[in-house]
Amino acid sequence: MGLSVWLLLGVGLLGTPVAGCGYESCPATKPGMLNVHLIPHTHNDVGWLKTVDQYFYGERNDIQHAGVQYILDSVIPQLQADPTKRFIYVEVAFFYRWWRLQTESMQQVVKQLVSEGRLEFINGGWCMNDEAAAHYNSVIDQMTLGLRFLQETFGECGRPRAAWHIDPFGHSREQASLFAQMGFDGFFFGRLDYQDKASRKQLREMEQIWRASASLEPPSADLFTGVLPNGYNPPPSLCWDQFCSDNPIVDDVSSENNVDSMVAYFLEVAAAQAKHYRTNHIVMTMGSDFQYENANLWYKNMDKLIKHVNARQLNGSHVHVLYSTPTCYLQELNRANLSWSLKYDDFFPYADGPHQFWTGYFTSRPAFKRYERLSNNFLQVCNQLEALAGPVGRKGPYGEGDSSVLRRAMAVAQHHDAVSGTEKQHVANDYAKRLAAGWDACQVVVSNALASIGGSKENFVYCNHLNISVCPLTESSHTFMVIVYNPLGRRVSWNVRLPVNEALYLVTDPDGQTVPSEVVPVSNFTWQVRRGRGDATHELIFQASAPALGYSTYTVSKTARGTLRSKLAKRIQEQARPRADAWSSREIRNEHVRVLFSPQTGLLKEIQNLDKDIALPVSQNFFWYNASIGDVDSTQTSGAYIFRPNRSEPIRMAGGARTYLVKNKLVQEVYQNFSSWCSQVVRLYAGQAYVELEWTVGPIPIDDGLGKEIISRFETPLQTDGRFYTDANGREILERRRDYRATWNLSQTEPVAGNYYPVNSRIYIKNKTFQLTVLTDRSQGGSSLADGSLELMVHRRLLYDDSRGVGEPLLEPGVYGDGLVVRGRHLIFLDTVESSADRHRLQAEREFMAPQLVLAPGGGPPFHPGQPSLKQFSALTQELPPSLHLLTLAPWEPSSVLIRLEHQFERGESANGSQPLSLDLLHLFSSFTITSIQEMNLGANQQRAAMSRLKWRPATGAVRHPVAPPLDPLRITLEPMEIRTFVATIQRQGAAKL
Amino acid sequence: MGLSVWLLLGVGLLGTPVAGCGYESCPATKPGMLNVHLIPHTHNDVGWLKTVDQYFYGERNDIQHAGVQYILDSVIPQLQADPTKRFIYVEVAFFYRWWRLQTESMQQVVKQLVSEGRLEFINGGWCMNDEAAAHYNSVIDQMTLGLRFLQETFGECGRPRAAWHIDPFGHSREQASLFAQMGFDGFFFGRLDYQDKASRKQLREMEQIWRASASLEPPSADLFTGVLPNGYNPPPSLCWDQFCSDNPIVDDVSSENNVDSMVAYFLEVAAAQAKHYRTNHIVMTMGSDFQYENANLWYKNMDKLIKHVNARQLNGSHVHVLYSTPTCYLQELNRANLSWSLKYDDFFPYADGPHQFWTGYFTSRPAFKRYERLSNNFLQVCNQLEALAGPVGRKGPYGEGDSSVLRRAMAVAQHHDAVSGTEKQHVANDYAKRLAAGWDACQVVVSNALASIGGSKENFVYCNHLNISVCPLTESSHTFMVIVYNPLGRRVSWNVRLPVNEALYLVTDPDGQTVPSEVVPVSNFTWQVRRGRGDATHELIFQASAPALGYSTYTVSKTARGTLRSKLAKRIQEQARPRADAWSSREIRNEHVRVLFSPQTGLLKEIQNLDKDIALPVSQNFFWYNASIGDVDSTQTSGAYIFRPNRSEPIRMAGGARTYLVKNKLVQEVYQNFSSWCSQVVRLYAGQAYVELEWTVGPIPIDDGLGKEIISRFETPLQTDGRFYTDANGREILERRRDYRATWNLSQTEPVAGNYYPVNSRIYIKNKTFQLTVLTDRSQGGSSLADGSLELMVHRRLLYDDSRGVGEPLLEPGVYGDGLVVRGRHLIFLDTVESSADRHRLQAEREFMAPQLVLAPGGGPPFHPGQPSLKQFSALTQELPPSLHLLTLAPWEPSSVLIRLEHQFERGESANGSQPLSLDLLHLFSSFTITSIQEMNLGANQQRAAMSRLKWRPATGAVRHPVAPPLDPLRITLEPMEIRTFVATIQRQGAAKL
Repeated sequence: MGLSVWLLLGVGLLGTPVAGCGYESCPATKPGMLNVHLIPHTHNDVGWLKTVDQYFYGERNDIQHAGVQYILDSVIPQLQADPTKRFIYVEVAFFYRWWRLQTESMQQVVKQLVSEGRLEFINGGWCMNDEAAAHYNSVIDQMTLGLRFLQETFGECGRPRAAWHIDPFGHSREQASLFAQMGFDGFFFGRLDYQDKASRKQLREMEQIWRASASLEPPSADLFTGVLPNGYNPPPSLCWDQFCSDNPIVDDVSSENNVDSMVAYFLEVAAAQAKHYRTNHIVMTMGSDFQYENANLWYKNMDKLIKHVNARQLNGSHVHVLYSTPTCYLQELNRANLSWSLKYDDFFPYADGPHQFWTGYFTSRPAFKRYERLSNNFLQVCNQLEALAGPVGRKGPYGEGDSSVLRRAMAVAQHHDAVSGTEKQHVANDYAKRLAAGWDACQVVVSNALASIGGSKENFVYCNHLNISVCPLTESSHTFMVIVYNPLGRRVSWNVRLPVNEALYLVTDPDGQTVPSEVVPVSNFTWQVRRGRGDATHELIFQASAPALGYSTYTVSKTARGTLRSKLAKRIQEQARPRADAWSSREIRNEHVRVLFSPQTGLLKEIQNLDKDIALPVSQNFFWYNASIGDVDSTQTSGAYIFRPNRSEPIRMAGGARTYLVKNKLVQEVYQNFSSWCSQVVRLYAGQAYVELEWTVGPIPIDDGLGKEIISRFETPLQTDGRFYTDANGREILERRRDYRATWNLSQTEPVAGNYYPVNSRIYIKNKTFQLTVLTDRSQGGSSLADGSLELMVHRRLLYDDSRGVGEPLLEPGVYGDGLVVRGRHLIFLDTVESSADRHRLQAEREFMAPQLVLAPGGGPPFHPGQPSLKQFSALTQELPPSLHLLTLAPWEPSSVLIRLEHQFERGESANGSQPLSLDLLHLFSSFTITSIQEMNLGANQQRAAMSRLKWRPATGAVRHPVAPPLDPLRITLEPMEIRTFVATIQRQGAAKL
Repeated sequence: MGLSVWLLLGVGLLGTPVAGCGYESCPATKPGMLNVHLIPHTHNDVGWLKTVDQYFYGERNDIQHAGVQYILDSVIPQLQADPTKRFIYVEVAFFYRWWRLQTESMQQVVKQLVSEGRLEFINGGWCMNDEAAAHYNSVIDQMTLGLRFLQETFGECGRPRAAWHIDPFGHSREQASLFAQMGFDGFFFGRLDYQDKASRKQLREMEQIWRASASLEPPSADLFTGVLPNGYNPPPSLCWDQFCSDNPIVDDVSSENNVDSMVAYFLEVAAAQAKHYRTNHIVMTMGSDFQYENANLWYKNMDKLIKHVNARQLNGSHVHVLYSTPTCYLQELNRANLSWSLKYDDFFPYADGPHQFWTGYFTSRPAFKRYERLSNNFLQVCNQLEALAGPVGRKGPYGEGDSSVLRRAMAVAQHHDAVSGTEKQHVANDYAKRLAAGWDACQVVVSNALASIGGSKENFVYCNHLNISVCPLTESSHTFMVIVYNPLGRRVSWNVRLPVNEALYLVTDPDGQTVPSEVVPVSNFTWQVRRGRGDATHELIFQASAPALGYSTYTVSKTARGTLRSKLAKRIQEQARPRADAWSSREIRNEHVRVLFSPQTGLLKEIQNLDKDIALPVSQNFFWYNASIGDVDSTQTSGAYIFRPNRSEPIRMAGGARTYLVKNKLVQEVYQNFSSWCSQVVRLYAGQAYVELEWTVGPIPIDDGLGKEIISRFETPLQTDGRFYTDANGREILERRRDYRATWNLSQTEPVAGNYYPVNSRIYIKNKTFQLTVLTDRSQGGSSLADGSLELMVHRRLLYDDSRGVGEPLLEPGVYGDGLVVRGRHLIFLDTVESSADRHRLQAEREFMAPQLVLAPGGGPPFHPGQPSLKQFSALTQELPPSLHLLTLAPWEPSSVLIRLEHQFERGESANGSQPLSLDLLHLFSSFTITSIQEMNLGANQQRAAMSRLKWRPATGAVRHPVAPPLDPLRITLEPMEIRTFVATIQRQGAAKL
């Protein structure tokens, strides 16, 4: 089948634009007047003070009055009754629930309204995701989930034209880049630094073009971006929701008639607002949190406002008010044909006043932030296996599996009060419960798929508590299988650690070859952490490897049961005894890295890159900031959102650590005990080119009445010139400068909190030559408060609410009531500046798409009678080059899959890695044959060929808008940081042997 | 025209019943099951925390979220969408406003809903009136106003079948009687004494027949009466309004699904409730204050409740839930065909718990209570003159007059948070403002009518501050006219008092005869009270008389301007000087009455009826109760609703009074000064058979931090056996017994407040022979706390809110901020028991329908050229007999008038007065000819002949339901306490001379 046919097949799949929605449905404006666009909208948090379900049904109104079902019930009849009225809806997580409860006739009504642009979906993700703590993989997934529902339900009229992040607490450049790649014509938001906003109002730079990628060719990541005038609220005194107490417009014969004063006030507000914007169009957001439960109140009064304000035109007024949408407002801005200034940096950190930096939430609820990241890992595995196995994944020997449960739970978890950690405790519990239910449903998919692909119906076991060395199967079985599934496009090695009990094991690889293994005692730290949940005394360690997009099956068997008291066992016993004198050399090393510790303090002292012959003094310790409870400068406390230490100097956890060493052929570990609630393992696996710091913090004591924010701080002699580097959502890196903002003259009020930035996956400092990079396993707040220093906040526990609505101190009591224990990993790379990207890009990929272990006792029957079992499998015909990340392989239609390929290097950050590359997509997969393929925008709700975003002229001069070359699936080219999205129709051939 | 023609003409005027509304529209119930009638309703206070307009439009939602316009907006579409849904609406004051803002098509929709019984009006008055402080004249008027709007707008389907007083704070027997006479089939209410309710639940006497008149022949004042189970609220946890936080029913696939627990709970609640009621029907009021602003919340959840509860019938449940109305519930009770016990007393006082007697509001806001009563007086005058003058009253030389402004303001003032005094201060101000606007509009009517009838376009002046001796015209003019309009059906005499300044006056009657007059100095008390508003130094007194339903014009001229220093002036000067020794006899007397005072204390000592030769020691003094601020027994404070003295013994205002005497041929007055804020004039006019006590109380000082409740207490040696007597709404008298309730075994918690009863116009004590009666000029609380004692609370000022919602202490700061001064009158009759009714019935009539003074400088041009002016006028061909009160003469249609005739004596209370009487109505009026006449029910919304109320069988045996004899307008017979209501079509002949 030739290429032209491929393209022809693609056309029409998603429907053609319908006249009457989108820009075509926009109301007329008056050219000579100031046009005020009223945007009726509601902001529906996908969980915050109440759970998603509680918000949807309107339960627990004692906590907060909010019932989303009623909002949609209420708005639709208003729109139906009057074709001039408009409403936008944003959060598909809620809309989807409402939709499926409607009668067919109501669905028809809604379809009609959408087809006429009267009800318009804006943003259109499953939720309005957080921008600081959300990983780009999950952002894309949650947007895709929402946009797809809209596309399938409403066709082209269901495709949002504008992005709308009116509530998230700061804005990442990556988010803007992703929005641009999803085809959005513009982006509006509400929250930015108060100084930034004041400056923008002054400079009339409330609306700009955001050049959101340093790699992608403009204008592909350019996004027209507008700052809304009143956050997302209406102007003062013009809130007519049931939650508000502003007076209605009384235009009746009554002593209460207030038309004159209301109109005069409105004209004043409009004129004042217009001063800060550049066109004769301004926007007013008429709505707020969970508003429009009784839409009549809003519309009845806006009707009167429009009537009476516009009536003044007869008396010479030049103000025209109208119902509008972000889309229609955007169109008018575009028609204004102005040149717009460019923005290159981002909108972090966000402060809504002096001393009020929303940088605490970068770390809040660290356990949930990790669980969310891990869940993405499992969702991708689940997606891949469902795509590879086909229908048997959803219905097979293990029952009905469903990746959509985890997909939705993950989408919900991206909400800006979910992964952000700014929700109430009971809501955080609910998010975790949803993810857990998603895991359960995905485990069925994975089991079905593995059995089908591997040909053997094993009794699969998922051990989700390996981080605290708990797994009943491995602890008690004589023999078991370890299936290592690798979701990456190239082979990986992985250090498997499984809890066992006093035994010697034989581990064999898929080919039956013995693999080196070691048994080490479970550390005291872990014993403390697991608090009785499990009693494995040892861990079995071995290095496994698995092929690209596939798995390897290892077999573990107990041997030498009687010889437990043998030499080996003795060695284990020795290791188990913490002995300060056991490692007099005070170092650990492998072929790549040497790590030195201070003999006096037991603290990290120096790291050496043996390959490059680099040595850098690096001291590392834990500290805690004493959380502010308000002071003379400000009543602001530190809380779930806000980070505010009561002084800039943190308190050292301990002068030194009690240490001991565990060392064997596979791993060397220095156990550092800082205090009863803070410990760390400094670890070097054999062959590993980085240092792993596994920290365990908590329960944070608060008996002393002090809230504590725990950091891990690295100090080096690097001359870093006030600069450090953090990633945005796990993708591109932004340079940060201490006490500095690129777009205004900063007046710094918080020398610590005001320099914190979100670290999604990595942070680094460098001088001209060397770079110290720290990879994280979850989102955290981080900074460099002094040259050569770098810190990450790992945990926080606070005694006061910070007055941003959540109404709870961030206590995280946990199951035992005394606070959560959090365990995590920092991976430390020391390398040259030039080589660092090669290291951290690939390792970060391995971290968030880590192998999934699936265990089984073994001995299951064949999937099909006579079918041999497959110990190893890869779904690819060839490995992907290192720069290429298989971002998405997921089920789409029954006979199609969604594929995203990503160039995972930035332009210029790696000599090799940053090169463009090409790939034969058509023949990449061995598990299925691609019969047709369509390239889509990043959100997969529009063909890439059909994308025609509004064109905006930057002040720096016009950009070229190149026409995309025709798709050649035999040679898909990717530029640095490019993501390409495909829907491929496939025929499955059954699992292919490696 | 013969009688049969009269009747024929009447038929059809108000339309015939339409199939589909009322009882015919009721939903099917299930005979073998417990039927639970859900009654969706909203309770809309016609002013309380916000003004009527603020409630209607939804202004000042900062005070209370409530917007009636939105309630009706919201309910109609719900009813439209589903024919099974029902809603009742009650307060026409609001509905009327909403209605006139609707489009014609919306009005059609509503008419259709009403015609099908889906929207049903219940009660249907302009407001839900107070029952303690409202006068029957105003109750009838406000009900008529509301019912008429409904009848005119919706025809027979707009006629409410049930009365519905779910919120008033206790229930008067007279209200029930009036409801019965208005044709209501039943009555439901929510508030009754907590002990009474407990007892009724126990005895299953929640529903009874109330025999509401001791005079009217049963069943004409029998009213089936039901106590609602939960006040007017839904059962706990089943409130689904936006104001509530109860959980919705979740019947979706969700972890939140709660159908099972909700259904189980509902069945439990229903079963528990059914235990206290006698039929297999029970009622649940699904709504509350200002609810249904977003009706969808309620209906959506009730739909689910109905669905899931009724679905259980398949599993054997015997509970059937349905949308219903009070009408439909009532019908089912009637169909049950049971015998019902009888109630004869009333539901006062109301206590909602120990120490919580709602007896403070009987007196709260005494100034407003008087203004309201006075406004009724003027409204009746306005009504009469508009009826008599015809169209010229509404449009004449003084502009466009409109009695409806005052009619509506008065109707609003009857609300149970208006005349009751339980509204916020700003709302009380608004009620007064409305009345004042009504006065203004009526003054135009009165001027137009008087000019038209009198033939002379005078520059009419209305002096509304005569009570503080302020009237610029009389103070400054050499000559002026005094028109004394008498709204009664027989001639009256009236002591006119007009402020003047140092002059001698000549007063002539309509025939030009000189009338005796006196000039007395304005007392110090009045100087204090008026606080600079006016500076008249003297008052001119003369006795005027005016013919039945007509007026007399008196002329006043200054004479002897130069002789001011003459003998007369000297006498005045003498009188002005307070001299304790000026009246050594310590008595005042006229031909009928002698009043003795204590020489030691200056207090009243004895009253003698000289006609009957009765002498009774009567001491009178003022006291104050120290308002409770809560104590160990209860936290209950005294407040706007609640009366709770902190001890039972009140504090004496003073041991004695400083006194002086003013005495002339026309009047004798003893001025008693009790304190700086309490004084009294004991007055005897010439020829007057009662003692008038004009008290002036206030500003009540609160600097001592004590709330005060001021009483006037009379003490006599009468043996009264714990009994005393109070009127109900100005009509029938009820016997009260101290510490006793007729229907349950009282456990008394408040020996004072728990014995207080509403005194609408009179209270008396008696022994077997003698009776001491006190007429009041407004509603007050009163009691007899010891035998022979009688007290009335005249004023109160309190420092704490009493936690019944108003949220303000009853401070009544007044214009000057230090508290209101209140002036009022008590008229004291001492007579035999047999003769007392003759006295108090007729005097009470003269008090609430007092002559209206209209002043003018005189010399106006003729109304029609050449038309002579008419100094005296009566609209009647003959005076009415004393027992007969012309309750209503008011405009109806352009060529018809509304007439109510009332027998104003109770059965058996007067040998002559209590006799039935007959009257030729046809030829009663000289101002117009009655061309046809229809007898109506009391509310004038149904022909009397068409009345067929539901029949209820009393436990005492069936009553006869006699067929009313055909109407003979030549001979209208009235039995004691009977009111007959007519709509008469008339032709006006122009004013008839006397």
